[in-house]
Amino acid sequence: MGIDPGVATVGFGLIEAERAQARMLQYGAITTEAGLPLSARLLQIGRDMEELIDRCRPEVIAVEELFFNTNITTGISVAHGRGVILYTAEKRGVPLFEYTPSQVKQAVVGYGKAEKRQVMDMTRRLLRLRSVPRPDDAADALALALCHARSVTSLLQRANLAAKQTI
Amino acid sequence: MGIDPGVATVGFGLIEAERAQARMLQYGAITTEAGLPLSARLLQIGRDMEELIDRCRPEVIAVEELFFNTNITTGISVAHGRGVILYTAEKRGVPLFEYTPSQVKQAVVGYGKAEKRQVMDMTRRLLRLRSVPRPDDAADALALALCHARSVTSLLQRANLAAKQTI
Repeated sequence: MGIDPGVATVGFGLIEAERAQARMLQYGAITTEAGLPLSARLLQIGRDMEELIDRCRPEVIAVEELFFNTNITTGISVAHGRGVILYTAEKRGVPLFEYTPSQVKQAVVGYGKAEKRQVMDMTRRLLRLRSVPRPDDAADALALALCHARSVTSLLQRANLAAKQTI
Repeated sequence: MGIDPGVATVGFGLIEAERAQARMLQYGAITTEAGLPLSARLLQIGRDMEELIDRCRPEVIAVEELFFNTNITTGISVAHGRGVILYTAEKRGVPLFEYTPSQVKQAVVGYGKAEKRQVMDMTRRLLRLRSVPRPDDAADALALALCHARSVTSLLQRANLAAKQTI
């Protein structure tokens, strides 16, 4: 399960992956009302995340590493939500993996500086979907899940290769 | 109860206040091991905060607003911890109040640009303690609690004054 962290919107995307083959199971977003106090929004995120984990029982969670872009205020806000997401995954005992935006681009498109649109389109194609999932946060979450699946596959392939070479 | 947010150390300070009189009840810090993954540290903070709230039953929690200083990396890390702290207070139904560092300085020292040392010393004097509490995070938390108590007192005084003037 990939998670795109935030406070207003937390994207999630669940896939099933075996070697290079991946299948989309479910995607969506947890959204919180803008008018609510931050603490109430965080409580909702925590509760919805727990419910989501209990319902989907993901084997691992892949979450985006925070990218320190120019907007510090947004970064600080996302970090509050991300804190609750990491807390929830740990509480439920789901192993966590973190990927930077450029790792996601590299794994999904094959190029670390790919544009967002390219990532979205490759996510759609790799999961054989008719259109790019919405909202964007859900598409980002599916890309994160794909990134993890492909990273693991690539690691396994390299390990196999190394094992063969050793033999 | 004042809370100084963080990931490595979360300071807490519990006071009892009636009008201008405040009494220190308890202070200390939740600390997490540097070697642990962030998610494990956040889980510990959440659990310790819940335990602390259940044991102390604070009427309100005063927490520091995040100050965007030059160190973005520290700010992002503190925001993860702060997210879990706000989540926990909300989960336990404790009303939250947020104060900026300059509001704390203004309320405790009477000067919004006071130095940290002055805040610590005034906190010690107002609570009639022999020495400044340690660690600093606990002293900061007590200052936050004092800030809330004094802000409320000052608001009540102004409201009373306004009421008298109306009569």
